[in-house]
Amino acid sequence: MSVNNIPKGVLSMGPHTYQIPVELFELNRKRLVEKLKDKAENSIVLLQGGDEVPFYDTDITYNVFRQESYFMWTFGVTEPECYGAIDVKTGESYLFIPRHPDEYAVWMGPLARTNDFSKKYGVPNVYYVDELKKVLEDLKRDKILTLKGLNTDSGLTAKPATFKGIDGFSVDDQTLFPVIADLRVYKTEHEIRVIRYVVSISSYAHRQVMKKIRPGNYEYQAESEFLNACYKKGGCRHVSYTCICGSGVNGAILHYGHAGAPNSSPIKDGAFCLFDMGGNYFGYAADITCSFPANGKFTPDQKLIYEAVLSANRAVHKAVKPGVSWVDMHSLANKILLEELKKGGLLQGDVTNMLEAGLGAIFQPHGLGHLMGLDVHDVGGYLAGQPERPTKPGLNKLRTARILKPGMVFTIEPGCYFIEPLLEKALNDPVLRDFLVPEVINRFRNFGGVRIEDNILVTEHGAEDLTKVPRTVADIEEWMNNDQADESKYLDKNCSYGKNCLYGKK
Amino acid sequence: MSVNNIPKGVLSMGPHTYQIPVELFELNRKRLVEKLKDKAENSIVLLQGGDEVPFYDTDITYNVFRQESYFMWTFGVTEPECYGAIDVKTGESYLFIPRHPDEYAVWMGPLARTNDFSKKYGVPNVYYVDELKKVLEDLKRDKILTLKGLNTDSGLTAKPATFKGIDGFSVDDQTLFPVIADLRVYKTEHEIRVIRYVVSISSYAHRQVMKKIRPGNYEYQAESEFLNACYKKGGCRHVSYTCICGSGVNGAILHYGHAGAPNSSPIKDGAFCLFDMGGNYFGYAADITCSFPANGKFTPDQKLIYEAVLSANRAVHKAVKPGVSWVDMHSLANKILLEELKKGGLLQGDVTNMLEAGLGAIFQPHGLGHLMGLDVHDVGGYLAGQPERPTKPGLNKLRTARILKPGMVFTIEPGCYFIEPLLEKALNDPVLRDFLVPEVINRFRNFGGVRIEDNILVTEHGAEDLTKVPRTVADIEEWMNNDQADESKYLDKNCSYGKNCLYGKK
Repeated sequence: MSVNNIPKGVLSMGPHTYQIPVELFELNRKRLVEKLKDKAENSIVLLQGGDEVPFYDTDITYNVFRQESYFMWTFGVTEPECYGAIDVKTGESYLFIPRHPDEYAVWMGPLARTNDFSKKYGVPNVYYVDELKKVLEDLKRDKILTLKGLNTDSGLTAKPATFKGIDGFSVDDQTLFPVIADLRVYKTEHEIRVIRYVVSISSYAHRQVMKKIRPGNYEYQAESEFLNACYKKGGCRHVSYTCICGSGVNGAILHYGHAGAPNSSPIKDGAFCLFDMGGNYFGYAADITCSFPANGKFTPDQKLIYEAVLSANRAVHKAVKPGVSWVDMHSLANKILLEELKKGGLLQGDVTNMLEAGLGAIFQPHGLGHLMGLDVHDVGGYLAGQPERPTKPGLNKLRTARILKPGMVFTIEPGCYFIEPLLEKALNDPVLRDFLVPEVINRFRNFGGVRIEDNILVTEHGAEDLTKVPRTVADIEEWMNNDQADESKYLDKNCSYGKNCLYGKK
Repeated sequence: MSVNNIPKGVLSMGPHTYQIPVELFELNRKRLVEKLKDKAENSIVLLQGGDEVPFYDTDITYNVFRQESYFMWTFGVTEPECYGAIDVKTGESYLFIPRHPDEYAVWMGPLARTNDFSKKYGVPNVYYVDELKKVLEDLKRDKILTLKGLNTDSGLTAKPATFKGIDGFSVDDQTLFPVIADLRVYKTEHEIRVIRYVVSISSYAHRQVMKKIRPGNYEYQAESEFLNACYKKGGCRHVSYTCICGSGVNGAILHYGHAGAPNSSPIKDGAFCLFDMGGNYFGYAADITCSFPANGKFTPDQKLIYEAVLSANRAVHKAVKPGVSWVDMHSLANKILLEELKKGGLLQGDVTNMLEAGLGAIFQPHGLGHLMGLDVHDVGGYLAGQPERPTKPGLNKLRTARILKPGMVFTIEPGCYFIEPLLEKALNDPVLRDFLVPEVINRFRNFGGVRIEDNILVTEHGAEDLTKVPRTVADIEEWMNNDQADESKYLDKNCSYGKNCLYGKK
């Protein structure tokens, strides 16, 4: 394991990228200790970092190692096979790193010693993993707190730390999860700076795609362009999820881009593009969708649907503030969208009745958005003591029903899709069909979809939009057709901590 | 699961990329049946494809799904959660695909039916996985052949197919592995065309990197450039292994580029670069290393080491032919390298004695090369009945000791590295130290390393080099300094099956 070339005390990919101070993780540990003091003072938090994932039975990995998010949040360590512990009583942190044989240096680089890790991550006490049991014993606390709990997006469960000899300790796997998951919901100033950076880089990469990709290209060439812009310019080696680059009808496939539908269609002239892509910087995610006409000029129908979704998006931006319910934001977006579709002639009847009947979920089967942080669908959506998952169709897809508070980071991503099986369902539904104007709907059946997805920070007073891409029809057309278009308006003006957010500059 | 946008009967990323006919996989199944007839005629081969790998407990994947290589070799199926079977008696093939709920279509695209898969993959009999047990029962064979065996590169074991109800069958997990692993060693004409393509694309991408990356760039920017060239131009969504982009001393870290040393150093003026990267096209690997001075001009010392390695590389190219032992090729490369280092003044004494004493493994601790195919370190290196792994230091790192035969694809990758712990070891070794000229060796201690890695096909008469990158000092300097350098000499002239190998054209 080598720590060469990395400045001490920061995580970074060079001076042109954001320098994450390890104080970010120190502060997270401090917050965690404060919350745990009352519940379990005489205990030790123990987290286990991730291991590399082999590609089946071969000697290559499925992907470059990426750290597990709870471990990353707490210790910021990017190497595999580590453990971390915090003595709740004293607040002292401990790192445990693998002990590699000398030969390892030949293959993996100079062996990082415990003091190298100590410097790099600002953790005073670093030991080898084979010393873990003894160090924990010597701390003489009542119990070890491990992490176990449901991820409400995946249905999977966080895997509690384990090591040889753990049965000699009293282990509590219930206390830690709700506390740490809830803390992750509220981003610190340190975290907001990283998120601001990765959203800024991802915005830059989307702008590059909009400049460079045109009819005749293949969808995956947009993906490639995006990946290159994020990595080469911003040091983002990974994206936060599989790139979704749907053009034409593919824009209506919500998770397009997977191995069975790998962004492999040619982009046709006249097609509408829905590109949902987000970079990842040291674990922190961006999640942005841009929707635009492949050839740079909106048709009247494209403008109609796009502006309907944009109205929904902007209404939510305006309404977001502390105290507001995310469920109400979803309903607001649905209402605006249906109103606009009615104005556009696709729907008829009373919008309140449409909403009541669940028509919103026909055109936007997914939730309005989600918490975002170290996970793109960040944790803490549904914890005990927080609003429960709604049951109504449409609302039940929401990844959280929380009341908004400052420090939360959300995506706002209303969409409108023409999804054949859902349209069929609606046209055959005794209640829903009366709202549809079939001859107009039919005009859009090969349209695909529109999604406008921004990344916002909830502040004391409202929402700050971190996303810096052309959003209005006029701005998109200007950006795509005018090589001299002014990029300075897409810079993040709240980014005053260095040159890191100036990703409009060429 | 959707099969939209993919022409029937070929795997491709568009007409500008190679169109892999599904006959490639049909032929592999036919070859397998022929080999198994004598051993187990009244049986059914059963292989289980890969599943998606979640990113820890979240709802995203660790990477876009990539198929397991034995399953890919046999069926060519790119989607997860499938099984494939072959009735050895009749030669009939069967595919089993997951049955998804209707709602899946909303998220993943139009549901592919069994007949869609049948057309796409040229397998007449396609069923759902929940029908697997019944279909196998109806075939009424004596036993099922599953795949179990050691991967001699990783030490891991191939995971035999399993399904609910398999205990009702007689299962033989021993017969299949050695047969299929040995077949994978010999590439068919169909496979050679794919490999030729992916090596051609990867050569193009290396050439782009050599044109664009200069001192002041970061190493990972070379990785980004390479990934983009492979994907955007050639449709290679994946690389075959983590990109190794070492500059300066990092060139001496054999597996540089991993999460603990993520290609994150600035490339300095005067530094030598060792960039080992290979694209992947529908599973088939390339694996190319280019070594060159970052600023485009060799210093005398750089020229010395580079040409020493090139001499070793070219000697092996000339010596490769059917009947030759790979172990002898390794020794040949070692011998030439040591001779050249002696000529250059780094070593003294008798080269035969140096070889005997194991000095080769100080400067090149890895094997000369390896089989390459669907796995970058392809299977079949050490199978029963084939030459066993040598025990001598240096030779014991060889991934195969096979006797060469036509249809094998190998990397030839001699290298010379100045690895501090190995130099220390040699300088302190009572035998080895006498061969070293310390004051000259010391001049190279921060040099890093050189590796020249080509991908070759063993033919009836010798070796065909599929790699098309500048290799001589003159060609490298010309390529890096002259914008008008002639790219046509890097085109694959044996690539006559379309425009797919013309990746020199801009």
